[in-house]
Amino acid sequence: MINGIQNGYYHEITPSGFGIAIKAGDVLFSKQSEFQKVEVFETESSLGRVLTLDDLMMTTEGDEYHYHEMIAHIPMINHKNPKSVLVIGGGDGGTVREVLKHDTVEKVVLCEIDGMVIEACKKFLPTISCELDNPKVEILVQDAIEYIKNKKDEFDIVLIDSTDPMGPGEGLFTEEFYTNVKNSLKKDGIMVAQSESPFVNKSEIKKMYDLLKKVFPICSTYTSNIPTYPGGYWAWAFCSENVEPLSYIDERRCENITKTCKIYNKDYHLARFALPNYLKELL
Amino acid sequence: MINGIQNGYYHEITPSGFGIAIKAGDVLFSKQSEFQKVEVFETESSLGRVLTLDDLMMTTEGDEYHYHEMIAHIPMINHKNPKSVLVIGGGDGGTVREVLKHDTVEKVVLCEIDGMVIEACKKFLPTISCELDNPKVEILVQDAIEYIKNKKDEFDIVLIDSTDPMGPGEGLFTEEFYTNVKNSLKKDGIMVAQSESPFVNKSEIKKMYDLLKKVFPICSTYTSNIPTYPGGYWAWAFCSENVEPLSYIDERRCENITKTCKIYNKDYHLARFALPNYLKELL
Repeated sequence: MINGIQNGYYHEITPSGFGIAIKAGDVLFSKQSEFQKVEVFETESSLGRVLTLDDLMMTTEGDEYHYHEMIAHIPMINHKNPKSVLVIGGGDGGTVREVLKHDTVEKVVLCEIDGMVIEACKKFLPTISCELDNPKVEILVQDAIEYIKNKKDEFDIVLIDSTDPMGPGEGLFTEEFYTNVKNSLKKDGIMVAQSESPFVNKSEIKKMYDLLKKVFPICSTYTSNIPTYPGGYWAWAFCSENVEPLSYIDERRCENITKTCKIYNKDYHLARFALPNYLKELL
Repeated sequence: MINGIQNGYYHEITPSGFGIAIKAGDVLFSKQSEFQKVEVFETESSLGRVLTLDDLMMTTEGDEYHYHEMIAHIPMINHKNPKSVLVIGGGDGGTVREVLKHDTVEKVVLCEIDGMVIEACKKFLPTISCELDNPKVEILVQDAIEYIKNKKDEFDIVLIDSTDPMGPGEGLFTEEFYTNVKNSLKKDGIMVAQSESPFVNKSEIKKMYDLLKKVFPICSTYTSNIPTYPGGYWAWAFCSENVEPLSYIDERRCENITKTCKIYNKDYHLARFALPNYLKELL
């Protein structure tokens, strides 16, 4: 079985031999960019439209909030006054949309290497990309590895909303890159990075956290359900020089944000850092 | 796409058009019982062997602990002295195995309607069924609907480890059945029932909880990840006449059980009842 659409079904089978299948409808967009194959297709299910990159699931209209609420609100609510936010990757715009729900935010820089992802999502996934034209957003179609090199004390929050540690995303999983991200953060800054599936990608996640722990004095993990990622379970790394996870909850924003969310609430936030034994042992 | 094995892959696609795919190896067992098709097949993945009933995923050697630890230990640790336990369904033996880790347990009754499930699992899934011959276990190949009718104040814990609310499991999702289960419990007894996927089975889960709430004064929900169920996310109903969830944690057993588990620990237990907004609104 090859990943991608065949005979009316999209498949994504992990190297361990299991994965997801989705009944596919019309392909709305399918092009090879300078970096990867970008595809958007319809489904006849509650998932709505689906974005894949190199035939790997990125997001769907029907379950995207599972990912975007978790990557954004956990660090944002844990920060006292997040004004300046950098999103690396995330060309679909879902993370930017969630970040902008916080009224403290003055500026969001989106640094996405592949302009075709942004264009495809603006056209075909408007419920996800809807805030990319917000005047607080600066879009840079640029390699984040280069962009981050010269940044010092600039961001309150950096969110690494990347693809997997292979292909165009590979350089975003290195000690040098993490060090540059750390330097780009203000003193009480927080970085959150998507960190793969604890069940499916055990060796990748171990390697990633070993690097992160070299760079950040505080490096923790939280997890949540993503229905359309193989294994249905995803992890994010919460890293900082000075801010412990759950050390602060901005009650006012927490309450306001909860009203806009399908997943996020305070209890759910507090519960995210309780990990299963197998993951605690791995990390 | 039909559920089951075709062209070397097992598929389970939910009515909403998405689901799971697993690379299948040899079929070790495949027979029609009086109630359902019982099948065990090999995979070449870390999932090991897989049990399906009527071409629906029941459990795999590689991820079964995600389900069995959650259905058993949450109520068992929340009970002060669970001696007498009834497992309804659960013919694979995984729930019985977890229950027997608690040294308070004097007797476990397994009431499974389909003897073929027990036989297939004893032969082909020994790591799951390994405690079915334990002298504390009484196995009844019998319809639980009949069995439970005359029971009064008999069990500390009843675990409904059933199939979905269709086919042989259908009668286990009725007000009459839940009332009989309640009557079979001692005063401080707890019932936990598997309650489907919050993301995939929204109408089934709503219907089930509406019935449960008519019967039990205390009816709560907890969730966890199951990698091989479509959507990767599962819910269990925690019901009782007198015992609130999280009102008690047996610290001694909690510590001992944690050492034997791949998932379960105290923090993870406490976090299970924090639900996403969409599920709180549904229930």
